[in-house]
Amino acid sequence: MQTAVLTEDLAFEFEDRERPTSDSDEVLVEMTDVGICKSDVHYWEHGKIGEYVVEDPLLLGHESAGVIAEVGDDVEDLEVGDRVALEPGIVCGTCEHCRRGEYNLCPNVDFMATPPFDGAFAEYVAWPADLAHPLPDNVSQVEGALCEPFAVGLHATRRGGVGHGDTVAILGGGTVGSVTMEAAKAAGATDIIVGDIVDSKLERAEAHGADATVNVREGDFAATVEDYTDGRGADVVFEATDSEPDVEALIDAARRGGTVVMIGLADEATVEVDALEIITNELDVLGSFRDANRYGPAIDLLAEGAAEIEWIADFTEPLGNVQEAFERARDDDDAIKGMISIGE
Amino acid sequence: MQTAVLTEDLAFEFEDRERPTSDSDEVLVEMTDVGICKSDVHYWEHGKIGEYVVEDPLLLGHESAGVIAEVGDDVEDLEVGDRVALEPGIVCGTCEHCRRGEYNLCPNVDFMATPPFDGAFAEYVAWPADLAHPLPDNVSQVEGALCEPFAVGLHATRRGGVGHGDTVAILGGGTVGSVTMEAAKAAGATDIIVGDIVDSKLERAEAHGADATVNVREGDFAATVEDYTDGRGADVVFEATDSEPDVEALIDAARRGGTVVMIGLADEATVEVDALEIITNELDVLGSFRDANRYGPAIDLLAEGAAEIEWIADFTEPLGNVQEAFERARDDDDAIKGMISIGE
Amino acid sequence: MQTAVLTEDLAFEFEDRERPTSDSDEVLVEMTDVGICKSDVHYWEHGKIGEYVVEDPLLLGHESAGVIAEVGDDVEDLEVGDRVALEPGIVCGTCEHCRRGEYNLCPNVDFMATPPFDGAFAEYVAWPADLAHPLPDNVSQVEGALCEPFAVGLHATRRGGVGHGDTVAILGGGTVGSVTMEAAKAAGATDIIVGDIVDSKLERAEAHGADATVNVREGDFAATVEDYTDGRGADVVFEATDSEPDVEALIDAARRGGTVVMIGLADEATVEVDALEIITNELDVLGSFRDANRYGPAIDLLAEGAAEIEWIADFTEPLGNVQEAFERARDDDDAIKGMISIGE
Amino acid sequence: MQTAVLTEDLAFEFEDRERPTSDSDEVLVEMTDVGICKSDVHYWEHGKIGEYVVEDPLLLGHESAGVIAEVGDDVEDLEVGDRVALEPGIVCGTCEHCRRGEYNLCPNVDFMATPPFDGAFAEYVAWPADLAHPLPDNVSQVEGALCEPFAVGLHATRRGGVGHGDTVAILGGGTVGSVTMEAAKAAGATDIIVGDIVDSKLERAEAHGADATVNVREGDFAATVEDYTDGRGADVVFEATDSEPDVEALIDAARRGGTVVMIGLADEATVEVDALEIITNELDVLGSFRDANRYGPAIDLLAEGAAEIEWIADFTEPLGNVQEAFERARDDDDAIKGMISIGE
Repeated sequence: MQTAVLTEDLAFEFEDRERPTSDSDEVLVEMTDVGICKSDVHYWEHGKIGEYVVEDPLLLGHESAGVIAEVGDDVEDLEVGDRVALEPGIVCGTCEHCRRGEYNLCPNVDFMATPPFDGAFAEYVAWPADLAHPLPDNVSQVEGALCEPFAVGLHATRRGGVGHGDTVAILGGGTVGSVTMEAAKAAGATDIIVGDIVDSKLERAEAHGADATVNVREGDFAATVEDYTDGRGADVVFEATDSEPDVEALIDAARRGGTVVMIGLADEATVEVDALEIITNELDVLGSFRDANRYGPAIDLLAEGAAEIEWIADFTEPLGNVQEAFERARDDDDAIKGMISIGE
Repeated sequence: MQTAVLTEDLAFEFEDRERPTSDSDEVLVEMTDVGICKSDVHYWEHGKIGEYVVEDPLLLGHESAGVIAEVGDDVEDLEVGDRVALEPGIVCGTCEHCRRGEYNLCPNVDFMATPPFDGAFAEYVAWPADLAHPLPDNVSQVEGALCEPFAVGLHATRRGGVGHGDTVAILGGGTVGSVTMEAAKAAGATDIIVGDIVDSKLERAEAHGADATVNVREGDFAATVEDYTDGRGADVVFEATDSEPDVEALIDAARRGGTVVMIGLADEATVEVDALEIITNELDVLGSFRDANRYGPAIDLLAEGAAEIEWIADFTEPLGNVQEAFERARDDDDAIKGMISIGE
Repeated sequence: MQTAVLTEDLAFEFEDRERPTSDSDEVLVEMTDVGICKSDVHYWEHGKIGEYVVEDPLLLGHESAGVIAEVGDDVEDLEVGDRVALEPGIVCGTCEHCRRGEYNLCPNVDFMATPPFDGAFAEYVAWPADLAHPLPDNVSQVEGALCEPFAVGLHATRRGGVGHGDTVAILGGGTVGSVTMEAAKAAGATDIIVGDIVDSKLERAEAHGADATVNVREGDFAATVEDYTDGRGADVVFEATDSEPDVEALIDAARRGGTVVMIGLADEATVEVDALEIITNELDVLGSFRDANRYGPAIDLLAEGAAEIEWIADFTEPLGNVQEAFERARDDDDAIKGMISIGE
Repeated sequence: MQTAVLTEDLAFEFEDRERPTSDSDEVLVEMTDVGICKSDVHYWEHGKIGEYVVEDPLLLGHESAGVIAEVGDDVEDLEVGDRVALEPGIVCGTCEHCRRGEYNLCPNVDFMATPPFDGAFAEYVAWPADLAHPLPDNVSQVEGALCEPFAVGLHATRRGGVGHGDTVAILGGGTVGSVTMEAAKAAGATDIIVGDIVDSKLERAEAHGADATVNVREGDFAATVEDYTDGRGADVVFEATDSEPDVEALIDAARRGGTVVMIGLADEATVEVDALEIITNELDVLGSFRDANRYGPAIDLLAEGAAEIEWIADFTEPLGNVQEAFERARDDDDAIKGMISIGE
């Protein structure tokens, strides 16, 4: 089968690999769509993220969907031909985090496209059946692939406790910010303020429900939130950038007793914060990492039409054009999300 | 000013009372719309609900909205002419429940239309300013009045922890069941099953988002939920009837580890439950009483269009026709909610 | 190795079985102490509990501790000679409950001494290493075995949200009631009322921290709680009996806004409750089933001396006297817990 | 009556003021004991904390207890002669924070000894009856006064969700650190690590239950926690210093998925944190400010003997020696808490 490999020299090469077979508890999935994550671009550009280093040829891609081609002997409830979204982390199931249900923190996870574990840039992937989530008729393959970031947004809004009538401020109008906005609306948030440095992203945020926006190159995020809320601040503030986050702005944007959720991942993230403000305003400042148990809700919300995410996908390239796709994902500031299509 | 008084003989009489004045922390409100609650009808028919007995002439009506006619000296943020919804309970602010924020449990509450405390069937009501919630332009007076039951539904769904992708089953398609459905959808519930004994109410539930319905005179509530969920059961089940609730059906309808929320109030409510099922399925069976802090979210959701409730109002009669309105509210099985309009 | 088998005729027979070997992720444990649970006695007397029927010879016993005799190849952190308590349920790790961390609700569990799955009445048991919890020097083998019921009490108090300064009422002074009392004290409960039908159990409850007790054959549980609390009621009420629970008494004993937790398991448990009281007092009525993630805290609390549970063990018989031990567990009303010792 | 006034020139003067009388909902309290808080010392030394400036003569002291000398007409449940601890904040009861039960965040609070609101350095204080908490016989006046900081510790441990078997690390062995340690133990924490810069405080922490200590002038806080926990980290980490907090050390000391609670208040608190670590370890970093609803539990725990706090009081001076007492509180590094006694 065809694969697109990122070599140790950080170039894409097409490699013919042996098609995998499904173990008894796995399904073999013929891949159709894979999203390009900023982390994929980062590995391609820099060869590493933190402690994860590309030392051997690696398949990228962890936002993926496909069609089941083969079903392991012990698998129930799934059949050949089922369209599925693949949850990208295989966890141990026995560590303290897994046993507590916070399996996103499992230290033993094999996560797609995180060295040395391969991702989904291949014609076929064999994957545990319980991580292959069936897609209803009215959820597309692209939406299935985008369930991965959407699940991240759903996890973050749950971490933040977003509820009926909340005012939510989101710093970052890219993939994570956009799906967090959709997740927040679906949880009952009624007022949404988005900040970014690219005007076109702010315009798209407004088109999809943001009540106010601010270009934080020109304007002040916290001041915009304060204005919109007549000085009260937002109930929940999300950091969803992929650069060094301005945590102080997040803290200033939160109301007394409010919550700040940080999701975005940057290389360098040592930031200054005013501890006194966290204390006297009794803020919750929460990290949010990947997701746990959010694929089911993601698919349900899409099937119901209670959230829309396909609008974040700007372009699709076949796997054969992976190089061009990554260049565009890196260079085009107006693009939120690029997709790779696999197969004919 | 004109008022419609329920006498000790349980007849309505029109009485001319002196127009109240607003204390320094109050506003005087010229009433426009008041919903007829089943509890109002119950007082009119039976003269009591539990320990609360109509021993003196009483004004009914606690779902109310009006326009500010006068503002107390110490009131900020409100002005003459502001349209407002009135939160009906004046609480003590110092008991253990108030201090904990669960002020709906304040034992010292003066609650509109609960003997001996008067309700809103009057041309003017003087009311604490912090319980007069301003209505934005796109929220009508009728919606303002209906914020009271809507807040009850919002409180119940928060008690039940309804979230993204949840399956919700509601027994009762009247006022409380309908607003709970709207509240659940706005919290991210994607699958809703409603049971009632009146077909027209089930049809209206379907028209407003129910995915499955069952007439529980003919069909089985729990079995319908089991069918719809392929045997799993609902995440959260609501009891929203005004008769003796079939708690066993609610318990059977809940999934393992799920939640049952009871809201509906009946006179006689001694019911049989299978304690073993509650234990081995580790259910949460929760009471939900009135609301706390839900008027703000109610108004925000209506203003945003994230929930609709005006569809539950079937008919409106002027205060002068209060007798006819109550007869219809008692007799018309197809009517979910009747309204009283006050003033010209 | 020697085992004590409960036959299909519900008699104990001593059977020589082949000593198991440990799989790669297992340890082989030489058993030392096993508690007799009411469920063990029930299987012996009646051959079934609910849907679980003794159709083949069965080893009873699921409250167990021993010493590691063999370590599987992939096991880290455990060594031969380590003293361990065995957590009795092997769960699937992939169902929705396991993935959420509520693995006590896993429908695919293999639970010791629950037909057809064998328990610990054997000289050796091979068991998953992650369910073998090491015991520090100052925690005895008997305490290790009793970690099972203690974990149930810890789970129940966590379900009930017991915290600093809470008043707790417990109906039942047997094993579950006693460990729940210890768990509640360790969580900060400062006032504890216990009800039972056996005076000696009430005396022992008082000796270990109960502030008030009532023999519910003679006195009224709820009235005793009301008296003790000057009419307020308890913050959290636990049902920890092994007979049909008087849920109405539990509900009456709870304060407005309080919580009732039901733990005890009886055969027949259809009970009457006043739904209106649950609603107007906004109670939480919660089932609590087995435990999840509580072996670690159980051992930590025992090692710290922050809770004591060995006092509930009344007598110990060697495995060869299992018949006599079960007769005493059945007949001696004053005994809270009997133990079986295995090996020399 | 005699009072000790802090003048605008930051000197103590003794002033004879008119004895207040109690309003209908107040009690008049003859003061006996008042603790000296670091904030009192700070006002005396610097004349301000943040935005709060001593512009007029001010009575300091907000950790206070006394005996009721007079009871307002509407007060029930309290009598002349009752010994009481005074909760220091009079809140509005109607703002969004009060209505939610988080009254510690009320922006309209009048808080003892916070300019321009007087504290308790006076022979008599008239105070709202619902903020005067009766002390049982076995709780002393000094303990009553110390309920104020103890309530802060109880609030912080509740914010942090401390529970059965938790490992807790506390940076700071002064008043707040010590009462937080007591609160954590009473919530079920079994392993406690304390860091400070004064050896005598560490010794006292060990004498009262700390399992490990570290002088953070010489050793590393996070490394000590890592060592003690075999690399896992603490479940909950508390910052309880009164200087610029080393938040990075707190974050490093927390386990994956753990919680950091910041309580201590310093003038200057802009600190550096590694946002990436908060995100990838999915930490909760929480501010904790004063307390809400914790006086009741504080008194219950002291009465039960479930926590001890009197050991933090190092010395007591009569009000006439207030100057000397403040000098010692400022200068004596070994002293955790100084007390002022009032009356003969």
